[in-house]
Amino acid sequence: MPLPDADLHPVATGLAKRTVDNHLAEQQLKLFSGWFCPFVQRAWITLEEKGIPYQYIEVNPYHKGPELMRSNPRGLVPTLEVAPGKALYESTVLCEYLEDHYPDHHPHLLPSDDYERARSRIWMDYVTSRIIPAFHRLLQFQPASYEGDGTARLDELRGEFRQSLLEFTGEMVDASQGPFFAGKELGLVDITLLPWAIRLWVFDEFKGGLGIPEKGDEDRWDRWHVWLAAVKERESVKKTLSDREHYLPIYKRYADDTAQSELAKATRAGRGVP
Amino acid sequence: MPLPDADLHPVATGLAKRTVDNHLAEQQLKLFSGWFCPFVQRAWITLEEKGIPYQYIEVNPYHKGPELMRSNPRGLVPTLEVAPGKALYESTVLCEYLEDHYPDHHPHLLPSDDYERARSRIWMDYVTSRIIPAFHRLLQFQPASYEGDGTARLDELRGEFRQSLLEFTGEMVDASQGPFFAGKELGLVDITLLPWAIRLWVFDEFKGGLGIPEKGDEDRWDRWHVWLAAVKERESVKKTLSDREHYLPIYKRYADDTAQSELAKATRAGRGVP
Repeated sequence: MPLPDADLHPVATGLAKRTVDNHLAEQQLKLFSGWFCPFVQRAWITLEEKGIPYQYIEVNPYHKGPELMRSNPRGLVPTLEVAPGKALYESTVLCEYLEDHYPDHHPHLLPSDDYERARSRIWMDYVTSRIIPAFHRLLQFQPASYEGDGTARLDELRGEFRQSLLEFTGEMVDASQGPFFAGKELGLVDITLLPWAIRLWVFDEFKGGLGIPEKGDEDRWDRWHVWLAAVKERESVKKTLSDREHYLPIYKRYADDTAQSELAKATRAGRGVP
Repeated sequence: MPLPDADLHPVATGLAKRTVDNHLAEQQLKLFSGWFCPFVQRAWITLEEKGIPYQYIEVNPYHKGPELMRSNPRGLVPTLEVAPGKALYESTVLCEYLEDHYPDHHPHLLPSDDYERARSRIWMDYVTSRIIPAFHRLLQFQPASYEGDGTARLDELRGEFRQSLLEFTGEMVDASQGPFFAGKELGLVDITLLPWAIRLWVFDEFKGGLGIPEKGDEDRWDRWHVWLAAVKERESVKKTLSDREHYLPIYKRYADDTAQSELAKATRAGRGVP
C-alpha cells in the first residue's frame, strides 16, 4: 500500500517548472530531485547560482525509479551523479563538491580565507544540527496529544525555534556590509538555511504563527528581516520554487505528524536530521 | 555543587602526557583540549600527523577557565584558537581547517580528487550522524530500567551498532590497496572514527561485549580487523592516548547513564550528536 506521502503532486509547478523544462536534456551531471524537498533545493540553488550545466531528473522518493537506484542504492534525493557509476549525496556535501569542482563558475559560495571558510562550515552545521530539528519539532508537535499543557509546550517550541534563528542571525556581518550572512555575496551558509526560511509560512498556516516580530518592531530581529527579504528576492531561489498550493498538502502531513519521510520519522523519535 | 563528571582525572597520562609536556610552550595556534575527549582527539591527531606547531591547553569542561571562555564563549572543547580573538570549534571543521591552512604539512588527509574528497565527507558525516549515536545508545542503555525485555533490547542495540560499523567498513578500499579507508594513507575519514574505535573495550568492560567476531572468524569482518589493527598502531594515535585506568571512571558514568556531558544528555533524550 502506498504511504500517505505518495500522493504528492508529481512534478514542479510555477517558476520551478520552467527551470525543470530547461534542464531535461541529457547531461553528464544529473540531479536526482524532488521538486518539494528543501535539501534538494540547496543543491539546486547552487547549480543555478553557478550556472553549471545539469540534467534535472524528478524522483518520487516513495516510488523510486531504477535510474536513481542504480546511481545511489540508498535512493536518496538529492543525489548527484557526476559520471556513470559515480554518485554523491548529502546536500551540503553536494554544494561543497560543486563549489570545488567548478572553480571558474561564479559566484564563489565559500570564502577563500581558510578561517572564514571554517566559520561558514560551523554555521552550515548549526543549521542542520540545530535549526532544522527545531523547525520540525515545532511543525510536527501535536498539542492535543501532549501529556501536559500542550499550549504552553507549543509556545516553548516556538521560542526555541525563534532562538535558534536569532543565534544564527547574530553571526551575520552587519547589514551595512550587505544583506547576506557574509555581506554582499550570497554563500553556502545562506543556501543551507534558506529553503526552510522561505517555508516559514507553514507555521502561519498550521501552527498559529511563529511569533517573530514584524519588521521594525524589535531591533534584534532587524537583521533577520534584511536577510530574509534578500534571499526571497534571489533569482535562483524563485526559480527553484513551485506554487504554494502544492507544498500545502505535503506540509499538512508534517503538521498532522503523519508524514512518513525519514526526517519526519526521526523527529517523531526525538532525533535530529538523519 | 559539582556535576558528577567533575571529578575526572585532571590531566593526560601515559604517552599522551609526554605529548602534552612537549606542547606547553606558547604558540599562536592553541588547542583547548580535554585529554579524555574523543572529539578533541580528532583534532589532536590531525595536529600530530601533520607536525603543526601548537600549544596544548587542558580544560576541565566542567570547570571552564577564563582563557577558553574568552576564546570561545560556548566553552566547548575542542576549540582551536588560530589567532587572538579568532577561534574555531566543531571537531571535523577543525580537521578540515588544519588540512586547508597547512598545505605544505604532510600527510595530506583529504583526497585531492574532488569526487573522492566529497566521498570522504559523506563518510565523515556518517560517523558523526550514525555510528557515534549508535555507540552511545548502546553504552548508555540500562536493561534493568527498560520497559520490556531489556536483554533483547541490549542485543538489538549491539546489532545496530555492529551494523553501522560494517556499513562503514564496506566502503573501504580493498585491503590489498592498504589498511586505511582509502588505502595506504591515513585520512580524515579514519581520524573521524578512530577515537571511538580504540575505545570499544568499554563495551567489554561494561556491557558484556559487542559481539564482533574475532579476527578470522567471519569474512565480512576481516576488513574491519585490518583497519583497526592499523589505526591502533599509528604513532599519532598512541601519542594522544592516556592510561586506560583514567578513562574507566569516565566511561563508567556513561555506562551507568549518569554522565552529564552534552552528548550524554542528548543520547538520553533520544537525540544525536549535539
